Amino acid sequence: MLMTAVDYRDSLRAYKPRVFVNGRAVGNAADEASLAPGINAVGITYDFAHRPEHSLLMTARQASSGKTVNRMVHIGETSTDLLYKLEAVRLVCKHSGCAQRYLTHDALNGIFQATKRTDEAHGTDYHQRFLNYLHDVQERDLTLGVAMTDAKGDRSKRPGEQANADVYVHIKERRPDGIVIRGTKAIVTGAPYMHEFLVMPCRTHTREDGDFAVCCAVPVDAPGVTIVARPAGRPGEAAAKFSSKYGQSTGAVIFDDVFVPHERVFLAGETEEGGFLTTCYATHHRHSCIGARAGFGDLLIGAGALMTEANGLDPERHGHIREAMVDLIAIVEGFYACGVASSVYCTKDPAGNVMPDAVFSNVGKLLLATKIYDMHRLAHYVSGGLVVALPGPDEDHNPETRASLTAVLGGRPDIPAEQRLEVARLIEDLTVSHQAGWYSVISLHGGGSPEAMKREIWRNYPMVEKVELVENLLDRGVLDEGRRVSKQPGRCCATGCEVPELPPAFKSAAE
Amino acid sequence: MLMTAVDYRDSLRAYKPRVFVNGRAVGNAADEASLAPGINAVGITYDFAHRPEHSLLMTARQASSGKTVNRMVHIGETSTDLLYKLEAVRLVCKHSGCAQRYLTHDALNGIFQATKRTDEAHGTDYHQRFLNYLHDVQERDLTLGVAMTDAKGDRSKRPGEQANADVYVHIKERRPDGIVIRGTKAIVTGAPYMHEFLVMPCRTHTREDGDFAVCCAVPVDAPGVTIVARPAGRPGEAAAKFSSKYGQSTGAVIFDDVFVPHERVFLAGETEEGGFLTTCYATHHRHSCIGARAGFGDLLIGAGALMTEANGLDPERHGHIREAMVDLIAIVEGFYACGVASSVYCTKDPAGNVMPDAVFSNVGKLLLATKIYDMHRLAHYVSGGLVVALPGPDEDHNPETRASLTAVLGGRPDIPAEQRLEVARLIEDLTVSHQAGWYSVISLHGGGSPEAMKREIWRNYPMVEKVELVENLLDRGVLDEGRRVSKQPGRCCATGCEVPELPPAFKSAAE
Amino acid sequence: MLMTAVDYRDSLRAYKPRVFVNGRAVGNAADEASLAPGINAVGITYDFAHRPEHSLLMTARQASSGKTVNRMVHIGETSTDLLYKLEAVRLVCKHSGCAQRYLTHDALNGIFQATKRTDEAHGTDYHQRFLNYLHDVQERDLTLGVAMTDAKGDRSKRPGEQANADVYVHIKERRPDGIVIRGTKAIVTGAPYMHEFLVMPCRTHTREDGDFAVCCAVPVDAPGVTIVARPAGRPGEAAAKFSSKYGQSTGAVIFDDVFVPHERVFLAGETEEGGFLTTCYATHHRHSCIGARAGFGDLLIGAGALMTEANGLDPERHGHIREAMVDLIAIVEGFYACGVASSVYCTKDPAGNVMPDAVFSNVGKLLLATKIYDMHRLAHYVSGGLVVALPGPDEDHNPETRASLTAVLGGRPDIPAEQRLEVARLIEDLTVSHQAGWYSVISLHGGGSPEAMKREIWRNYPMVEKVELVENLLDRGVLDEGRRVSKQPGRCCATGCEVPELPPAFKSAAE
Amino acid sequence: MLMTAVDYRDSLRAYKPRVFVNGRAVGNAADEASLAPGINAVGITYDFAHRPEHSLLMTARQASSGKTVNRMVHIGETSTDLLYKLEAVRLVCKHSGCAQRYLTHDALNGIFQATKRTDEAHGTDYHQRFLNYLHDVQERDLTLGVAMTDAKGDRSKRPGEQANADVYVHIKERRPDGIVIRGTKAIVTGAPYMHEFLVMPCRTHTREDGDFAVCCAVPVDAPGVTIVARPAGRPGEAAAKFSSKYGQSTGAVIFDDVFVPHERVFLAGETEEGGFLTTCYATHHRHSCIGARAGFGDLLIGAGALMTEANGLDPERHGHIREAMVDLIAIVEGFYACGVASSVYCTKDPAGNVMPDAVFSNVGKLLLATKIYDMHRLAHYVSGGLVVALPGPDEDHNPETRASLTAVLGGRPDIPAEQRLEVARLIEDLTVSHQAGWYSVISLHGGGSPEAMKREIWRNYPMVEKVELVENLLDRGVLDEGRRVSKQPGRCCATGCEVPELPPAFKSAAE
Repeated sequence: MLMTAVDYRDSLRAYKPRVFVNGRAVGNAADEASLAPGINAVGITYDFAHRPEHSLLMTARQASSGKTVNRMVHIGETSTDLLYKLEAVRLVCKHSGCAQRYLTHDALNGIFQATKRTDEAHGTDYHQRFLNYLHDVQERDLTLGVAMTDAKGDRSKRPGEQANADVYVHIKERRPDGIVIRGTKAIVTGAPYMHEFLVMPCRTHTREDGDFAVCCAVPVDAPGVTIVARPAGRPGEAAAKFSSKYGQSTGAVIFDDVFVPHERVFLAGETEEGGFLTTCYATHHRHSCIGARAGFGDLLIGAGALMTEANGLDPERHGHIREAMVDLIAIVEGFYACGVASSVYCTKDPAGNVMPDAVFSNVGKLLLATKIYDMHRLAHYVSGGLVVALPGPDEDHNPETRASLTAVLGGRPDIPAEQRLEVARLIEDLTVSHQAGWYSVISLHGGGSPEAMKREIWRNYPMVEKVELVENLLDRGVLDEGRRVSKQPGRCCATGCEVPELPPAFKSAAE
Repeated sequence: MLMTAVDYRDSLRAYKPRVFVNGRAVGNAADEASLAPGINAVGITYDFAHRPEHSLLMTARQASSGKTVNRMVHIGETSTDLLYKLEAVRLVCKHSGCAQRYLTHDALNGIFQATKRTDEAHGTDYHQRFLNYLHDVQERDLTLGVAMTDAKGDRSKRPGEQANADVYVHIKERRPDGIVIRGTKAIVTGAPYMHEFLVMPCRTHTREDGDFAVCCAVPVDAPGVTIVARPAGRPGEAAAKFSSKYGQSTGAVIFDDVFVPHERVFLAGETEEGGFLTTCYATHHRHSCIGARAGFGDLLIGAGALMTEANGLDPERHGHIREAMVDLIAIVEGFYACGVASSVYCTKDPAGNVMPDAVFSNVGKLLLATKIYDMHRLAHYVSGGLVVALPGPDEDHNPETRASLTAVLGGRPDIPAEQRLEVARLIEDLTVSHQAGWYSVISLHGGGSPEAMKREIWRNYPMVEKVELVENLLDRGVLDEGRRVSKQPGRCCATGCEVPELPPAFKSAAE
Repeated sequence: MLMTAVDYRDSLRAYKPRVFVNGRAVGNAADEASLAPGINAVGITYDFAHRPEHSLLMTARQASSGKTVNRMVHIGETSTDLLYKLEAVRLVCKHSGCAQRYLTHDALNGIFQATKRTDEAHGTDYHQRFLNYLHDVQERDLTLGVAMTDAKGDRSKRPGEQANADVYVHIKERRPDGIVIRGTKAIVTGAPYMHEFLVMPCRTHTREDGDFAVCCAVPVDAPGVTIVARPAGRPGEAAAKFSSKYGQSTGAVIFDDVFVPHERVFLAGETEEGGFLTTCYATHHRHSCIGARAGFGDLLIGAGALMTEANGLDPERHGHIREAMVDLIAIVEGFYACGVASSVYCTKDPAGNVMPDAVFSNVGKLLLATKIYDMHRLAHYVSGGLVVALPGPDEDHNPETRASLTAVLGGRPDIPAEQRLEVARLIEDLTVSHQAGWYSVISLHGGGSPEAMKREIWRNYPMVEKVELVENLLDRGVLDEGRRVSKQPGRCCATGCEVPELPPAFKSAAE
Repeated sequence: MLMTAVDYRDSLRAYKPRVFVNGRAVGNAADEASLAPGINAVGITYDFAHRPEHSLLMTARQASSGKTVNRMVHIGETSTDLLYKLEAVRLVCKHSGCAQRYLTHDALNGIFQATKRTDEAHGTDYHQRFLNYLHDVQERDLTLGVAMTDAKGDRSKRPGEQANADVYVHIKERRPDGIVIRGTKAIVTGAPYMHEFLVMPCRTHTREDGDFAVCCAVPVDAPGVTIVARPAGRPGEAAAKFSSKYGQSTGAVIFDDVFVPHERVFLAGETEEGGFLTTCYATHHRHSCIGARAGFGDLLIGAGALMTEANGLDPERHGHIREAMVDLIAIVEGFYACGVASSVYCTKDPAGNVMPDAVFSNVGKLLLATKIYDMHRLAHYVSGGLVVALPGPDEDHNPETRASLTAVLGGRPDIPAEQRLEVARLIEDLTVSHQAGWYSVISLHGGGSPEAMKREIWRNYPMVEKVELVENLLDRGVLDEGRRVSKQPGRCCATGCEVPELPPAFKSAAE
């Protein structure tokens, strides 16, 4: 059953989570103004699945159930699935800034792989449990929050050595019917308006820290769960042209002795597979982030072009403006290309789904993480200083100043001053406000810090292949048949998936 | 008479400007909460002039009057003056974020030069008028706003061709006793809490646009003046660790047929000298901006180091954190060095004061304009994702969550969680909030866009010297005495000023 | 018939071109030592087509003839073809530095498209002529040089306005049986060891310059052709570990009244289609350049890793070395990803072949053009100063110094000093020698300057789509069904090709 | 006695060093063609000291002897000395590419400080010995090579742990009349045409490695010294417009049981002071490098402007060319400014001379080290692809091609083709040849790797001051008198030197 945005909002009313926003208890997320932009953003992923022109990107057929599900809860099986998911994420994020729900996809795919591997190593039955859960999530078309980043405490100590064990979520008790978990996850995107949380470990734990290697599903209103969140976007702010409509809440989630029945537990002490889960999720998620930030890039490119126009500047004639616009495009399409390549060179996991290529997805995430700042710079460059100097929106209704300001704040005569101010405020909202700062920091640190990406690139790069190439060149003169052959597979050789297929909509245009 | 910060605030009560902030009429700037951070920031420049340890940087002896005045209203006569001013601006800005009053200095020095040149070209007496005004400003220790950036309207047309002439401030009428000016200046820093405005042209006008080449001094409450401003900083916001105390307002200033008596008019139609004034001011101002943003850099460096510490990370052991801190330092000291070099290679103006070297000051401003974004990136990098994820300050007083959050949000055991959160919020305030966005855009566009700087660098660089160097090398073998000698002076050769002297305080340490 | 490298070299003996290298007349390219590295490099493309493990990448079935041909002379029909060609170019270039023959591919594909379009616009029969020629080229497995970049003369004048018309190649005379061309092409890669030249216009000409819009095929030894070339690589230099084996010659080609029969003429005055040809070729070629420089990147990555090892540095422990290696990888895979994406989002030309997506291919080429310098920097960074300080190879045989130098110039005890020096010289050869400089400049300017790429990106980007996205967001609140629909197709929507398929070799590994 | 370049060359004939270049024994450096460009470059520092217009920069009065000496062998006592030295280095390097002799200055100043400190710590008399030596060097106007970088062997082991102790120069024997040293210095700039070598340790040694902490002066032809060198520049290469005239040799110097009498020994086992010497030298040297590479930048800027002109491109009209030229200028003047600031903020050493500020000099060196690659890129960008495509100089005399090539390779009609080719070859020589590669690597690694600079910046930055600034801001509201006062001096506070004075020649212009 594919819900609509309205259905999704309504469905939240069935939950009674304990939520605080800015120190205030919030009754029900569905009707809380400070969270509305977040719910709107997630809602896009529901509505777009109903649009015929987007259905190929936004829906897919789940192999294990045979049912058509929302792309955001699908388990991808081909490189085409990955490419469609990437395009789908870009699509929903260019309309919402960041639609958040792709985290659900990334976590489901990671757990799909990790449960399979765990079962094979330990003879457990996590994978079947998870499939049952997955089908239910797909059937009910849920949105799941990723509860992964622990509070961490003293970074120089292991979880088990912490003075306060609650800085990491862990299994406090194992009961016949399930487990009891306890601890705090510090950064959970969209926490207050999720249906459930997928609790996952945030790193590989040592054997003695087995209780910290826990993965399970917990409804947002399970007894013992408390959510302390920030407002989503800039609700109610007149100057927030965009983020008063669409935004993202971030929350800390406290698990205070929360009981989880066995059928919702997908890992409970298998430390090595816990690390595998972390890495799988991270790779899927970095791939998704590329699509998400490309969508944000689309917004900036469009807004920059509109602002330039409203200022009366023609990029054809003003070379430095055109250069800046092209620099902006090159950044966005440059990291997006890494997402595409990561889809094409994906690998087939033994569990049956596909993993984006780790090198390309980490390079893409690394690029967007550092270049989001350049994107802001370029948007400011083409827009001019007005974006921080123009009088606030309250002034628009001040009878004593409105007329004289409007008379002088226009640019081109054929574009009303109001329109120029509106675009300037959009740029300000996207690149100057605290929402803009959120985009920066989340791009830099979300899904792992740049250092984490660099380590993954290093770990996954087929260095042996490159070294042997050069050794061969040094050994011999012109290459010949007798050269030493690389025994180490390169990145490409590990792939075995089918290849991406562009959506028919894309194809038909040229036929 | 050197005022204190308290004196300065009191002195504002004598003015009755017509000010609107966010659509609301503000009675008196001195007592307006939304402007308090701006007044605090300017106040630093007053208080520091009274501190013995800063007096050498913060005060100077005005040659034409023989009186000791605040550095911010001084006319510099030596390279030492320029170096001290640069250090002084860095000093006050690292305590206030941006103390704004250096604009007064930059404008006074620019007008000092332009009036002298105008008198010599046109036989006018602007310079003496200006000296009288200057001495009065110094005596009363005023802060003057720079009303330079016109609203501009359609950028493809000259001022005289605009449908609405009011998009540029211009002389509407010339009377026996003075002039009447009219039009809107769109971006005036600190507008609501200035004593007076120095109206200046924002570019060289053509001869037929002579009425737009006007420079004069206007009290903020002169009849016909309306100020439409934004709040300074983030007054009253609990999360604003810094910008609730110090901030900057920006305002549009509407001149609706404002009469200015002759003794306050310093240019009235001399278009060529108007362009010279614009350039002089810009060069002084870009030099000052270097000091200002270095002060902001000091804040970021210190905050980054504190945050790293609170996270429990030791830069000695974590190379990537140390690298990022050094990158941040290298950016800040790299552009600051341009300010120092610009002081050392200053030129003596025929009017008697000194001009910072144009190449170095423009290179320095260009660097800070584009690298402010990297500064934010690096501050985020060393700080981690907590800066946008931590619960808001209202949560600190929520009895239902406070204890559990505090228990898990700490880092190192010897640093209380509160302290870590406080630093995280400071970083957020400085680099994520709309105040942070303001710093970015103002760094990029304030004092002219990067494109303007590049043009100035190109215009001022001694290219002939470099070309002749290479021509000589190509003409002959090993250099000899008979080579062609450059007839074109290089940058350095134009200098004739005394050289900078470090403050005795700096000297004494090593003696 | 697929030739081998030996066959190729032998085949050159059948030609008697008039070639000068460094002022000296060269009898036959096949036996000229100064050109041997160039012939070796092209030879790789022949030999690799015979290797079973590379045959899928290196060969393809030509649709119009049904024959299996070398990938470098194939007309691509699917996105898979483009991806394979990209991989094939990377493959041959990582073994040869730059195998050059992909220019043949790029020109053949561009002419394939342009002749079809010309016939449709003008009723000519160029396309069939070209097909006949193509099949012959494929059958004989030739390598064709691209004679496109004219000498250009005074850049402020059109070709027809030049004092000396010969600065552009043009039709001097039209005869019943063919045309006579005249003029100079200034930069022809591999000129002395090509079988034939494909003469093409280097830009869109105006209607009155119709005689400059000429495309035809000319054997290298056609009467009137003179080639003035540079040596290929660094033949005979002992220090040139790599470029004494593999290199590239560049030549100026003078056409002194060269007769070309009609069946070899593919454009003769159709100026608009001449511009189309230039653009088509450029897009194919930029796509190929991405693969070529990624291959060069493979060499640098491998050599850097070897050098690091020989220096006794472990990237796992020395974070700054690992960071630099990852930066190098991220650059190479970052622009390579653009080549992959350009393949995936290719467009089907009405002529039946596929065009790489113009935005992605230009972004990729732009990235490699500017980042080749960073690649050199990073290779130097990880290698240390020894690469320019170690004694030259002649010292290796000096009995008076050899022993003592060898004793002290080693690094790790388990790696002989000779081996360390050998790697150091390889790095020097690749990144410090004039061969290295050639890679830089050719990367920057080959296939068009960065400015040309930026203009192409600007021209091809679906800006309307982005602008409408933002306009819609500003018009309405939360997106709904009634929003304005974009009438302008985006980049993707223009595609209609099949999708890329990874080579079976890549697939099999995981099955 | 100030020698001329001719005197200098003649003076080398008095030495009989054992030198090998490219495996060949070289009789006398003065008459060896392969070293002539190096001798020419050093010669500039001699000739320019005799030119009245340069005498203020190129000479100075040595305080301890009262004599006027060449700036390159002077001990600086004021910040003016440092600024003059910086300007002097830029001057001689913009005429010679790199005049090398500033290393003599840097080593003399470092030893001056280290001997003083050693005497105070250990009661030795090294300083007086050194003064005697210094005065002799000044009197004879010598050029001294810096023998610092050891061969190093296995980088994971200390010198004393190496299998072969000769990978570091060390004291093999202590005799009543002196010491015997042994080992290899791997990179000695200008080795074959120095008068003497100053042997210095390349790092701080541990106490048990005391024999490696040795500093002494050794004539190039002392018994037991062997020099294995590379040619200087590109002697005899017709295409080398510049580096056939001026160049730099690098040599390995083998000390095979070389006896050094006590009066030439300046450190012999004092490990801590050996480390101090290394740091002092490095700081002086990085300051000098800034001037040197700025001189190289002058060459590039001039050559780029000439090439642009010869291509017929006007930077006023072609914005992208102007942007690139300004980017090049901004890089060069940006790092040069760090040299200026480092002079201004110098510190007075207890020995009586001045040290450039360590933060600014390291930031400047770090900038030039990484941006030399961008300088090459920009020079290529403005020059176009001709620089690697034009036929070699031998072609200029080929009667069969000369006329036709000359006819088509010109650009602007008023600039002869020969002139355009000459400039293109100069650019090629400076940025594409192996000489160009040498400039890159030497800029990156010479005077220490970027990592070494970053560590020095980190070690010297007044971080405590910044941290306390922020702590104060967090503690209190608006700053007031009661705030905590920093007890830790900042960078500036350590200075006690006089301030720089611009040369009178610079001053006179404006008077």
